[in-house]
Amino acid sequence: MTNQSTEALQSFKDTIRKIKSYEEALGVLYWDLRTGAPRKGMDNRSEVIGALSADQFKLSTSPELGDWISKLEETSVYAGLTEMEQRLVAETRKEYDRSVKIPPKLYQEYVVLASQSESKWEEAKENNDYAGFQPYLEKVISYTNQFIDLWGPKATRYDTLLDQYEPGMTVAELDHVFGGLRSQLVPLAAAIAQSPHQPDTAFLKQNYDKEAQKAFSLYILEQMGYNFEAGRLDESTHPFATGLSPGDVRITTRYLENDVTSALFGTIHEGGHALYEQNIMEELIGTTLCTGTSMGIHESQSRFWENVIGRSRPFWDRYFGELQKRFPGQLDVSVDQFYRGNNVVQPSLIRIEADELTYNLHIIIRYEMEKLIFNGGAKAADLPAIWNDKYKEYLGITPPNDAEGVLQDVHWSGGAFGYFPSYSLGNMYAAQIADTMERELDGFWSNVGNGNLLPIKEWLTERIYKYGKLRTPSELIQSVTGKPLDPQHLVTYLTRKYTDIYKL
Amino acid sequence: MTNQSTEALQSFKDTIRKIKSYEEALGVLYWDLRTGAPRKGMDNRSEVIGALSADQFKLSTSPELGDWISKLEETSVYAGLTEMEQRLVAETRKEYDRSVKIPPKLYQEYVVLASQSESKWEEAKENNDYAGFQPYLEKVISYTNQFIDLWGPKATRYDTLLDQYEPGMTVAELDHVFGGLRSQLVPLAAAIAQSPHQPDTAFLKQNYDKEAQKAFSLYILEQMGYNFEAGRLDESTHPFATGLSPGDVRITTRYLENDVTSALFGTIHEGGHALYEQNIMEELIGTTLCTGTSMGIHESQSRFWENVIGRSRPFWDRYFGELQKRFPGQLDVSVDQFYRGNNVVQPSLIRIEADELTYNLHIIIRYEMEKLIFNGGAKAADLPAIWNDKYKEYLGITPPNDAEGVLQDVHWSGGAFGYFPSYSLGNMYAAQIADTMERELDGFWSNVGNGNLLPIKEWLTERIYKYGKLRTPSELIQSVTGKPLDPQHLVTYLTRKYTDIYKL
Repeated sequence: MTNQSTEALQSFKDTIRKIKSYEEALGVLYWDLRTGAPRKGMDNRSEVIGALSADQFKLSTSPELGDWISKLEETSVYAGLTEMEQRLVAETRKEYDRSVKIPPKLYQEYVVLASQSESKWEEAKENNDYAGFQPYLEKVISYTNQFIDLWGPKATRYDTLLDQYEPGMTVAELDHVFGGLRSQLVPLAAAIAQSPHQPDTAFLKQNYDKEAQKAFSLYILEQMGYNFEAGRLDESTHPFATGLSPGDVRITTRYLENDVTSALFGTIHEGGHALYEQNIMEELIGTTLCTGTSMGIHESQSRFWENVIGRSRPFWDRYFGELQKRFPGQLDVSVDQFYRGNNVVQPSLIRIEADELTYNLHIIIRYEMEKLIFNGGAKAADLPAIWNDKYKEYLGITPPNDAEGVLQDVHWSGGAFGYFPSYSLGNMYAAQIADTMERELDGFWSNVGNGNLLPIKEWLTERIYKYGKLRTPSELIQSVTGKPLDPQHLVTYLTRKYTDIYKL
Repeated sequence: MTNQSTEALQSFKDTIRKIKSYEEALGVLYWDLRTGAPRKGMDNRSEVIGALSADQFKLSTSPELGDWISKLEETSVYAGLTEMEQRLVAETRKEYDRSVKIPPKLYQEYVVLASQSESKWEEAKENNDYAGFQPYLEKVISYTNQFIDLWGPKATRYDTLLDQYEPGMTVAELDHVFGGLRSQLVPLAAAIAQSPHQPDTAFLKQNYDKEAQKAFSLYILEQMGYNFEAGRLDESTHPFATGLSPGDVRITTRYLENDVTSALFGTIHEGGHALYEQNIMEELIGTTLCTGTSMGIHESQSRFWENVIGRSRPFWDRYFGELQKRFPGQLDVSVDQFYRGNNVVQPSLIRIEADELTYNLHIIIRYEMEKLIFNGGAKAADLPAIWNDKYKEYLGITPPNDAEGVLQDVHWSGGAFGYFPSYSLGNMYAAQIADTMERELDGFWSNVGNGNLLPIKEWLTERIYKYGKLRTPSELIQSVTGKPLDPQHLVTYLTRKYTDIYKL
């Protein structure tokens, strides 16, 4: 390497490190806001977050950074970089172009709009007033369309949006996988609905002491291999995980006094996200590669731990006794009743309350609608009717009002189009990874049944976690499972599980 | 104002606002580190704090800021500023000069040294190894002397250090007030030691439930008028208060299971600091005037609430019953016994464990030693002997080793010379303010006896809190009490209190 390129590499890395430092500081500020910052400090805190975000954005879009990236992209220089450096250059180029292609003034207008639109959405949802929200949604869609033009449309316009959250994912691939999923899950859900063997759930809804719930959540996290020296569990209204650095990955949960497993499954879910972030290899610390490779892969880990492991029969064979001990006299059911009670399938209106199976239908509906908006020219005014038709078709139910229909999710109000598919991608990836794990990890299910969960964490660390963003989602799924994403694993998993539970 | 000066004023204010934003972000990061950040994230967090501090320092010392200050200092421009703006310009000038006078390289060396010296001190204290620490202390003193030269000595070299923590305070004034204090407190402490009426304290040292202690601490904070919508109470090894903004002033305490009042008095102390910061007027938010005017005045508020109010007889006439209720069967003593048990005077070795009276002698010793170092040329090698002689002379006891003597405090290891006097200034200011309050606030002590503490908070807000740094310490004490600092109030207060308790 020439002196000049060595200097460019050093300056490039220093800048990335600084961008990451700002990101970590902002992460702490957001965590604090969501876990108990005093109400009266909010206005000032927003200003602090604004100031730091502006500085971080300035760093991320500086002409100097652009020059360093270009220098490092020169064929002779690039060839001399390590694999990690090459990935970092490519990743930074992608983010840099994304950011600088939008004129600052346009972006500023959009930030203001998105913030107004989110609060308007909150109001509209509360008052079941889609008409009041519609003009804001129209504008958000219009700005998003401008961004697609600036970023450059891919195979279709909507592809450009998908790529933000799941790099490399396309409409062509999603049409294929979601098509397969939908055609098999709709009849499976219908068969389940007609089964005479519906599980009992009443026993779950008593008054369960919050402190005992918390103690059990902490116990299960520890069993999963969550490192409490590199994290902590707090409470917040909407549970989340935040990876500040691999040495500090925090999770939150929400305890419902009248539900014994709601907080627990939430904790396991966020714990899955956290295991990913805690186990990224040390070499990536201080770089933008030190995070999950995509929203879909990240979600595969939360859903793997929550559903594949946490809602499995072997898991409760091992842990139901422990749970019973903590709530003496309250869980007087068999492990079979308990397992079935926590695996109810029921078509419902609200995505975030949906079960493991029908959840995917909620996502497919949103995916098809986003495609209609950006590729098919659907207007904001048309969305409630389209929504209701699709719920009728796929889930057999019709929302009584827009608050429980098209207005239920925050995503669109803030312009997060293209995000929804991640959730179902997570389910599909999780099932495909579990299929490989069952074959390759000796005694997988008997380990779960014995409460020996650490080998699972180790297996995932070696194949997924440690790489952070060093491998793309498609490279990762190929290297772990030996083939590309295949929705059939999720179908097989769900069919097997519910055929047993509902005695189909 | 000309366009040019209007622009300078706006840029000046924007920069100050940004500096404050960084300060608040750093405040959250430090609070987080001290209240439960995971151990493994510390290294990375230090780097984040370093990056933000560097940016804040760069902003605070930028040539542009210097130009704006100079512009605003021009007589014709300055005259057109509001009082608040004038103070802000003066305050910023002071800080700016302080910072830019030290060459960045020298400062960088010093930061590294101070950090090494602090960890060396910790080790030395643990191993009672003054000799191991001495070379570091020598270097810290030598750098501090270089800073005095760069900043410019005042009436004496040590005056330059005092001014950092108590603007305007001088050796001449401190010699006068500490002289008066020492000559009267030494005999008072001696008389107390010889009294046959020593209070009983054994009952304080049982096992007191931590949750009940916490509940009582929260109750007393609420009684004081601490606003929980603008703050929160957490735990940390070393209790502190941090004013992130008036809308977010957090305090911490430390519960000792074998002591019923340790955490409580700690909470009231930090609560006093917090009341100050919560009640600064809104106009000062976003400026560097939005904080206490000096360490001494700040400490006067923590000590006023902790000692003058919290250790008073009327306070316990009202609250002892409430405390008893929370520890059924454990506090079977009279309110008189309880009050006396919490007001024991006893010469002791350790400053932070000292009582309200002898505490001042601990401070006077440190003050006299700092003067000897910077004005009298005392060497680091001489300090243990000087320390022990003074403890013998003023407190009648000699430390058995340096760990319990000259090595006990962290301050000198990090170069915080000139800070110690603030603690006793706080006691003197508090007694002087209380004297005025007793005369001017109707029914002051009967209000305390009835648990009606809010008028006290209001009185202090109107006269002290709301002004933040808008008034200097000497202006403030003059305006509140009608005269300059007078140590006689503390002597009178202590004499009256302990004559009663010890039946002198």
